[in-house]
Amino acid sequence: MVNKKNIIIDMGGTRLKIGFFDGLRLMETKIISACSQEAFVHTIHKIDAEITNFCRSFHIGTIDGIGLSIPGIVDTKTNRVISINKKYSDSVTFDLNQWSANTWNTILITENDSRAALMGEWKVGAGKGIDNLVMITLGTGIGGATLIEGKLLHGKHFQAGCLGGHFCIDFQGEQCNCGNKGCAETKGSLWALPILAKENGWPDDTIDFEQLFNAMRAGKPEAVSIVRTCIEAWSACTVNLIHAYDPERVIVGGGVMKSADVILPRMENLINRYAWTPWGKVDLKAAEFGDTAALYGMNYLLHEKIIV
Amino acid sequence: MVNKKNIIIDMGGTRLKIGFFDGLRLMETKIISACSQEAFVHTIHKIDAEITNFCRSFHIGTIDGIGLSIPGIVDTKTNRVISINKKYSDSVTFDLNQWSANTWNTILITENDSRAALMGEWKVGAGKGIDNLVMITLGTGIGGATLIEGKLLHGKHFQAGCLGGHFCIDFQGEQCNCGNKGCAETKGSLWALPILAKENGWPDDTIDFEQLFNAMRAGKPEAVSIVRTCIEAWSACTVNLIHAYDPERVIVGGGVMKSADVILPRMENLINRYAWTPWGKVDLKAAEFGDTAALYGMNYLLHEKIIV
Repeated sequence: MVNKKNIIIDMGGTRLKIGFFDGLRLMETKIISACSQEAFVHTIHKIDAEITNFCRSFHIGTIDGIGLSIPGIVDTKTNRVISINKKYSDSVTFDLNQWSANTWNTILITENDSRAALMGEWKVGAGKGIDNLVMITLGTGIGGATLIEGKLLHGKHFQAGCLGGHFCIDFQGEQCNCGNKGCAETKGSLWALPILAKENGWPDDTIDFEQLFNAMRAGKPEAVSIVRTCIEAWSACTVNLIHAYDPERVIVGGGVMKSADVILPRMENLINRYAWTPWGKVDLKAAEFGDTAALYGMNYLLHEKIIV
Repeated sequence: MVNKKNIIIDMGGTRLKIGFFDGLRLMETKIISACSQEAFVHTIHKIDAEITNFCRSFHIGTIDGIGLSIPGIVDTKTNRVISINKKYSDSVTFDLNQWSANTWNTILITENDSRAALMGEWKVGAGKGIDNLVMITLGTGIGGATLIEGKLLHGKHFQAGCLGGHFCIDFQGEQCNCGNKGCAETKGSLWALPILAKENGWPDDTIDFEQLFNAMRAGKPEAVSIVRTCIEAWSACTVNLIHAYDPERVIVGGGVMKSADVILPRMENLINRYAWTPWGKVDLKAAEFGDTAALYGMNYLLHEKIIV
């Protein structure tokens, strides 16, 4: 395990992060932009160039494996992308196995980015030593992943454990962008903020979570009210995740966690009140790796594959 | 497997059902009442008497195993009852292992009753051949269980997969009897019907699902409205179960399914509209064994244990 040389690619919404691992150590990362205008094959060419650079800098002849963290639903058995962020839409028809075999003569594994991040938090972050974990990521949308008895939950069509943001918490409420009614995202995500802002008399044309929490800290009543709704929605969503998967700990991540000091104690309070856990209390913890959890997670998954 | 002689006990809310199996065949069942007034040890004495009768009638010297289906949360590794319907409250301190070993010199397995019923439906009922199943049972409350890749989902504290009725679907709604807010049960269970009746101007003092569906069929507007709310709640709950566990099929059971002709097509319609399943459509099917699913299921689980 110590000397495996792996390349991990985390396909983020706005940029791709490429990491070079020597064993379990992340030696270097490189960020390239994700261009929706161009075909996925061009992005692959950019990735190829970066891998060539890594190999040159570290005097590496052979790569032991490539791991790809994907913002969408992916068939991890065949490495086929089933459904993805529109930025990478033509990756659905791209043959990733052929690329890794022909260009790099190595094996490839793929995983949903939230599952990869949870794996990273489990191995080296906020989930260390805990084999039953749920992660919820609060940002543009609400993402997540689930670990049961030390195994990532996938489900028949690879969408189990990561759709918590689309649990209905308001069954007679607003339509979500997924087509469902009253998903948690409709009451607590970046895309839904303008709607919440309008309903609560927010004075400006724009709103994001940083502005919202700043205004709340300044005591603006409309901000206080929107924050209350968001935290209630995130907590209801987390209670549903706890009732669904029976974890020991829930890890909360995502951009909004810059205001963890406000968010975590309030969520903890609501969750302790509303979750049915006769065995004790679920532990709520902030994610420890904002940016590199998925890289570490994929590297661990790749080691599991290579070593076995 | 063919000639194993097993005793299965299904501890129902109002009565206990005891079944004698020869291999996979249910040879005879006996029903005894569950008396909350008396200690659990008295119920055990009644069970002992029935087992003695079975052994006498079928000329059996040795029982190969006992399976106990329990209306509560049970630690299936140690056969310890964690939380249970108050009718059996002192079963929590009763040593079931000692009983089966000392009195019957045989092994014992336990399981939550909803999981046992799902196992039965999977092996011989509405779930045959489908390894990724969710069951939802609509009645006094909303029960359920989950099978993923042919394995019952338990979770760390044995409460995963069976708390769908306590998924929040109305985060700013009424308090549930579990302490949570806006659980599916608050909008679609026998215990919540009097509340829904009051809100909708139901004219009588009493209400149950049979009365409700009869009134709906007779075109009474208040009944139409309550039925609509219940079906919306059951559908939202099922969508959440689909988003949580990614099954191929959902089996719907419980007392209200006497009106399956009204319920199933409407739920199917809402679920097809609201569930996010890019791979196709989740199959919705009525449970096939109302009364004996848990007996068959426990017998299968017992065989698995004995044969291995």
